[in-house]
Amino acid sequence: MSDIKSTLKDIAADTGFSLTTVSLVLNHKPCKIPDTTKAIIFESAKRLEYRPNRLAVSLVKKKSDTIAFVVSDIRNTFFASLAKGVEDACRAYGKTMILCNTDNQHEQDIRYINMLVDKGMDGIVYGMSGDTNLEKGRECCQLMENQGMPFVMVDRYFKELDYPCIKVDHVQGGYLAAKYLIEKGHRKIACASGPAFLDDAADRLRGVQKALEEAGIPFDPSLVYEGPYEMETGEQAFAYFQDKSYTAVFAFNDLIAYGFYTQARKAGKRIPEDFSLVGYDDIYFSAILETPLTTVHQPVYEMGKKAAKKLFHIIDAEPEEEQTIVLEPYLVERESVKKK
Amino acid sequence: MSDIKSTLKDIAADTGFSLTTVSLVLNHKPCKIPDTTKAIIFESAKRLEYRPNRLAVSLVKKKSDTIAFVVSDIRNTFFASLAKGVEDACRAYGKTMILCNTDNQHEQDIRYINMLVDKGMDGIVYGMSGDTNLEKGRECCQLMENQGMPFVMVDRYFKELDYPCIKVDHVQGGYLAAKYLIEKGHRKIACASGPAFLDDAADRLRGVQKALEEAGIPFDPSLVYEGPYEMETGEQAFAYFQDKSYTAVFAFNDLIAYGFYTQARKAGKRIPEDFSLVGYDDIYFSAILETPLTTVHQPVYEMGKKAAKKLFHIIDAEPEEEQTIVLEPYLVERESVKKK
Repeated sequence: MSDIKSTLKDIAADTGFSLTTVSLVLNHKPCKIPDTTKAIIFESAKRLEYRPNRLAVSLVKKKSDTIAFVVSDIRNTFFASLAKGVEDACRAYGKTMILCNTDNQHEQDIRYINMLVDKGMDGIVYGMSGDTNLEKGRECCQLMENQGMPFVMVDRYFKELDYPCIKVDHVQGGYLAAKYLIEKGHRKIACASGPAFLDDAADRLRGVQKALEEAGIPFDPSLVYEGPYEMETGEQAFAYFQDKSYTAVFAFNDLIAYGFYTQARKAGKRIPEDFSLVGYDDIYFSAILETPLTTVHQPVYEMGKKAAKKLFHIIDAEPEEEQTIVLEPYLVERESVKKK
Repeated sequence: MSDIKSTLKDIAADTGFSLTTVSLVLNHKPCKIPDTTKAIIFESAKRLEYRPNRLAVSLVKKKSDTIAFVVSDIRNTFFASLAKGVEDACRAYGKTMILCNTDNQHEQDIRYINMLVDKGMDGIVYGMSGDTNLEKGRECCQLMENQGMPFVMVDRYFKELDYPCIKVDHVQGGYLAAKYLIEKGHRKIACASGPAFLDDAADRLRGVQKALEEAGIPFDPSLVYEGPYEMETGEQAFAYFQDKSYTAVFAFNDLIAYGFYTQARKAGKRIPEDFSLVGYDDIYFSAILETPLTTVHQPVYEMGKKAAKKLFHIIDAEPEEEQTIVLEPYLVERESVKKK
């Protein structure tokens, strides 16, 4: 949203590369330019605070009243609910939403963003792929920014980025889960974590550590198993924890909890009799499991709605609220935790 | 795919309405033309076998290698798996897929189709909204046809339509479910059906009737409860069946089965001890329920893949396979049925 600071010509002059090369790289067009060249150009663009000429972009762009929600895994009920929130806000504002499912692959994020720019979408609600580290996340954000595509990040985020976002306070979420287990008498709490390079997983673990510290319980890193936010991770975690001493598991999302639960049942173990289990997300099915799952509820539908509304404000250049909106999670007590 | 049979002018001459009116109606543009006029124009277009000038349309149209999957309810895991099939086929063919979720509202089908035409998509895999009757279904198909938008129908279909489609043999699916229950000694089988005006629900019921007839069991229409393909329908069905005499329930999709299951548990009834239960779809969660659900498996992922491939063939004007592809369902035996 800042003014034009420098032009493609400035970057070309600064780096010595041709205007064509600079334009190809900064517009993330498919090309065979070496990564070393790209790095130099990106570095120069950053240093010279290059921003695309947003006004010129918007002058030639017709509003289409259609936005896209780029989402990492629509088969995960969590994201399906998020999509529903975005969609309902769209309908309320007379907009149309399309979904772009990246299947947790960063290169699909790039592909979709380019396509959405080509198709003249008004804006993007952007949920990063699960394999996105800080550098890749920055690449996608800069791509949208350079193309003059309004966007709002949702759910996943990196503190180091400075873009509009709606997210949940996952330190608090992790804290609530661990604190609850500690209150129920558990001291050996295993964590079946999502990818540690993601802020949301790292934050949950930070919350766990905070709760442990408050209770004077030392943190044992060998009780953390890390994997993608999928059922398989829970299954693998059960096997990994088999020779460890623990009484409770905090699964960093409900799908991981389902995987742990399924594998435990196969091994003849019961929840909560043999192990207490807390999930995270509170998706649809968690309430109808044999042992309804105690889990950290994320206000996911609300998050989707707020993300869409924030995007509409940006598209319409209406006065901005704060750059980052943080929503608070809460614990839903069901039947998967036993007092020790 | 047929040649030009008649033009908009022919329709105007035939009906006496202006070329503008005829064009607005046949291109389904927003307009305030009375329904009676529309009906006359559609009737004439049908009688004169009007087809848009596909060649002219394709000449001005640039291929975008992007197709859309118009889907009725992406939060239903069934459709999420279908989407995954379409998506994987797209990736294998170097295409990009976007999702348009209609939330089971026919007017959203129309809205999305118009948007997709405007945005220059190459084609549509079309899953009709759950509130779509034959007339509405025809409206959408004619809209795509008139706009020269290649499309393939998937999952939901009406026999009366003559368009490319991939579907599952639901008569066979219903037959398998009922036959299995009958073999287990059940004679009073209640059906928690989807919307009866949909072919897929009507076909399942036909399959049930066929199995009953073969076994010499009279069909009792009072044992059919009908509602949308959602959990709530199963909850309502449980209440509706409360004063009826039955030992088994065939839920026309797994979500309805979950609703029945949840409500039964609330009422202190157990599955399969008190009621046997068979679902339909075999979605993700059916295997991890307390009582893993016996259900009719639909080859849904495969259906999505085949639909996308068929669409690519149509887009590329490659020699057509048969217009309709029918896939066979099969029964997955788990633990929700008890021998009587």
